[in-house]
Amino acid sequence: MQIRIISIGKTDEHALQILIEKYLNRLKHYISIDWIVIPDIKNRKNLSHSEQKLEEGKRILNKIKAQDHLILLDEKGKQYTSQHFSKLIENHIHFQRNDLVFVIGGPYGFSNEMYQKATEKLSISKMTFSHQMVRLFFAEQLYRAFTILRKESYHNE
Amino acid sequence: MQIRIISIGKTDEHALQILIEKYLNRLKHYISIDWIVIPDIKNRKNLSHSEQKLEEGKRILNKIKAQDHLILLDEKGKQYTSQHFSKLIENHIHFQRNDLVFVIGGPYGFSNEMYQKATEKLSISKMTFSHQMVRLFFAEQLYRAFTILRKESYHNE
Repeated sequence: MQIRIISIGKTDEHALQILIEKYLNRLKHYISIDWIVIPDIKNRKNLSHSEQKLEEGKRILNKIKAQDHLILLDEKGKQYTSQHFSKLIENHIHFQRNDLVFVIGGPYGFSNEMYQKATEKLSISKMTFSHQMVRLFFAEQLYRAFTILRKESYHNE
Repeated sequence: MQIRIISIGKTDEHALQILIEKYLNRLKHYISIDWIVIPDIKNRKNLSHSEQKLEEGKRILNKIKAQDHLILLDEKGKQYTSQHFSKLIENHIHFQRNDLVFVIGGPYGFSNEMYQKATEKLSISKMTFSHQMVRLFFAEQLYRAFTILRKESYHNE
């Protein structure tokens, strides 16, 4: 069992990339983790928002296996506390053998096909954040989840 | 009328500081803004969590004027969408002459005195984030609010 994170487009801000990698490197001490970055679609400025979502969806689904437990990071999703989120991960690790796959979509969200394939939708905040910044928030939150499960002090520091 | 942000302790991560400053510099094009960093309490490791909150509260209240509209960033606060948050700011700018002051507390939250003085509590997420990362969240969200009010493209990029 592995955790995979899929996101669209390079993180173009160097400082953001440094912070994401910090949490990713820490996470690797706890679990096998793979962050897949799907390149931005070329000439996407010529596409409508729904064409772009559709095309991104196709490329994301290429990286998904039928048995994956697919969770979309989506504003319309369910909100968890950090504690509950750590429970979700713990339950998956204990009772499932398939991979847990989190997808951070592009700026316009997900195609209908993506919603149909997804098992769950997770919302980090009612507020909208840039899809690049969501990567950092999610990396920190995933790291926090493992420190909660290991009863390490980070969560209450 | 000015917006002030008060936080406790230096942002110790350089990359995080770079990102916060990016949004702060952009914000300065829209409004008079002042970010006050209250130094960490010395020997705070010798204090209990409630002693630390009490001491931090005193130092924060030193920076607050009686007429300020004081909003605490607090996990137990009200959640806003980015749109609603921009409305809150717009209403304040149009109808109030006092300063809007947002406070990001220390790692253990706020003292009772702080809660009593506050006009509102605002929660960014049900999830817990480090009080350092909340600074970045909030800076981005405040910047986003102004781009929404100015109908600039950032919010839907």
